[in-house]
Amino acid sequence: MKEIKTIEFKDDILYLIDQRKLPIAYEIFQCKDYRDVDFAIKDMVVRGAPAIGATAAYGVVLAAKEFLNEEKEVFLSKMDEALNILNNSRPTAVNLMWAIGKMRRLIEENKDLSIEEIYQKIREEADRIYEDDIKTNKAMAKHGNEVIKEGATILTHCNTGALATVGYGTALGVVREAHYSGKNIFVYADETRPRLQGGRLTAWELVQEGIPAKLIADNVAATLIRDGKIDVILVGADRIASNGDTANKIGTFMLSVVAKAYNVPFYIVAPTSTIDFDIESGQGIEIEERDSTEVTHIEGIRVAPEGIDVYNPAFDVTPWENITGIITEKGIIRAPYKENIMKLKED
Amino acid sequence: MKEIKTIEFKDDILYLIDQRKLPIAYEIFQCKDYRDVDFAIKDMVVRGAPAIGATAAYGVVLAAKEFLNEEKEVFLSKMDEALNILNNSRPTAVNLMWAIGKMRRLIEENKDLSIEEIYQKIREEADRIYEDDIKTNKAMAKHGNEVIKEGATILTHCNTGALATVGYGTALGVVREAHYSGKNIFVYADETRPRLQGGRLTAWELVQEGIPAKLIADNVAATLIRDGKIDVILVGADRIASNGDTANKIGTFMLSVVAKAYNVPFYIVAPTSTIDFDIESGQGIEIEERDSTEVTHIEGIRVAPEGIDVYNPAFDVTPWENITGIITEKGIIRAPYKENIMKLKED
Repeated sequence: MKEIKTIEFKDDILYLIDQRKLPIAYEIFQCKDYRDVDFAIKDMVVRGAPAIGATAAYGVVLAAKEFLNEEKEVFLSKMDEALNILNNSRPTAVNLMWAIGKMRRLIEENKDLSIEEIYQKIREEADRIYEDDIKTNKAMAKHGNEVIKEGATILTHCNTGALATVGYGTALGVVREAHYSGKNIFVYADETRPRLQGGRLTAWELVQEGIPAKLIADNVAATLIRDGKIDVILVGADRIASNGDTANKIGTFMLSVVAKAYNVPFYIVAPTSTIDFDIESGQGIEIEERDSTEVTHIEGIRVAPEGIDVYNPAFDVTPWENITGIITEKGIIRAPYKENIMKLKED
Repeated sequence: MKEIKTIEFKDDILYLIDQRKLPIAYEIFQCKDYRDVDFAIKDMVVRGAPAIGATAAYGVVLAAKEFLNEEKEVFLSKMDEALNILNNSRPTAVNLMWAIGKMRRLIEENKDLSIEEIYQKIREEADRIYEDDIKTNKAMAKHGNEVIKEGATILTHCNTGALATVGYGTALGVVREAHYSGKNIFVYADETRPRLQGGRLTAWELVQEGIPAKLIADNVAATLIRDGKIDVILVGADRIASNGDTANKIGTFMLSVVAKAYNVPFYIVAPTSTIDFDIESGQGIEIEERDSTEVTHIEGIRVAPEGIDVYNPAFDVTPWENITGIITEKGIIRAPYKENIMKLKED
């Protein structure tokens, strides 16, 4: 297995694989302060809910480093500002708010310590989030592999691989696990317009690892599902409400409707940090709308006429009724979701 | 209303709007012989089932012109070869076979006339196919307008406008009719990957005509449908089986599944020349697979990694159960389709 270092923190610099450039170019984007991190998340240098969470955590480390020589009061106030900016870099993925929330509580609980000590605690927490993500992904992959049969054909959407996380992946982590555990699997990867994360990133990871796969336009999936060519659908999540409704990359909901109509198992693969216990249902999830140029231009070239309006939501919400199970690091959650998700909270 | 001359035959040259270049450039592609016409259909200079039919008819005119000075037997044999080549330029749209079939019968029935007289008959037949297409589209548009309510929001897929026909359009003809009859309609246009006919061509027609519209990635449609934002879905057809199963641009089937799940009316708009009475169901329809570069490259730029395989079918089949009605120039066909389509054949 090739190691893909999506995120690396070294000598007070955060190194990110520039996912805007793949698969044409492999470039590293350097974040030297938390403003660079804010930009990297906003502009999707880094994307994928778990990867955003870990990136934001190192953004907080960079902020703390920057304000190390300030007075305590100034430090706390500037940290508060940095936390708010990072927290608002993108609205839908809850892992971002989860990581920032952890940092905020950590600072609050330790505000009487010296700034140097607070900084150390922040650094340790970021490293923990980073390392936990890989462990979590491997645990998810093991649970997920239980639902993958020998010879299975798997449909994926967007990128849910090493590039969407600190490493290994969520839904694509399950694919990796199935492949490396010796199962002869085959993957159909949706290209995932408008940003083409499936075509650019998932296809790149699959080629890197030599996992047998075909890339398809998003319009093709429904026919494959109907024709019995898909055994299981695995997707990631950006936020899961406490009733199981799941926000994920635009197009996920459509797949779930077709999967339900043709009785194909449809699984969400996401760490429990993706669950937002504070919201009752998908209606509470803010859906990010992104710039129209994501649809009208590709690689800077215009592919739609001037003067056309665009509606470009980045995510949609799949209702719990369409979900066969939610594969987490703690096992597979199944209906009744509300009850079973509540048990997780109590753990 | 602006006139869009998709196809024009003048002084023995067939002029086509080069749809590969829109909306970035407006260029005219000239066909001087039937081989140019074969290329233009294959390479999608011209596309859209009715437009392909009329284009192929003029291809036969160009062939007859070319062989005008041959011996009768050589003429008939060379015409047979040209008819076969044109007939095989693309496999799914039945209007192509319908137009070529008309020409083949015409030649057969008149083979005892002089070559000049046969040529004249071919020329008249092509002009009739051309003129009938516009009349047919206007008749369809009137019938279709009956199902469009004041203030309706309409979802379209691919391009079914003036550019897909000789003029006015099929599904987009209904949109035009509704708009020009004074209804305040709004259109969501699917961009329609991989060839982006919605983004490139439908959006261009909508901007030209000033019809209020938004362009969306194909992944967005399902959420709009579920959220009650779409009143009716109008799509075209490339071939309709005698039981009502309909082949149309890839992605159509997916829309029909979501429409059915959320009770949104789903109409096919197509001339009766799109009906293939010879096949019992959609299973008999050959689905064209096109080159992988349509998915891996956009405007010549690579957007997927080297080494990834691609599955790129150009069409899918929507089962009659998912279709609210088929809007034709003779009225709206509804279930039971088999019976009602058979009545058309007897007309």
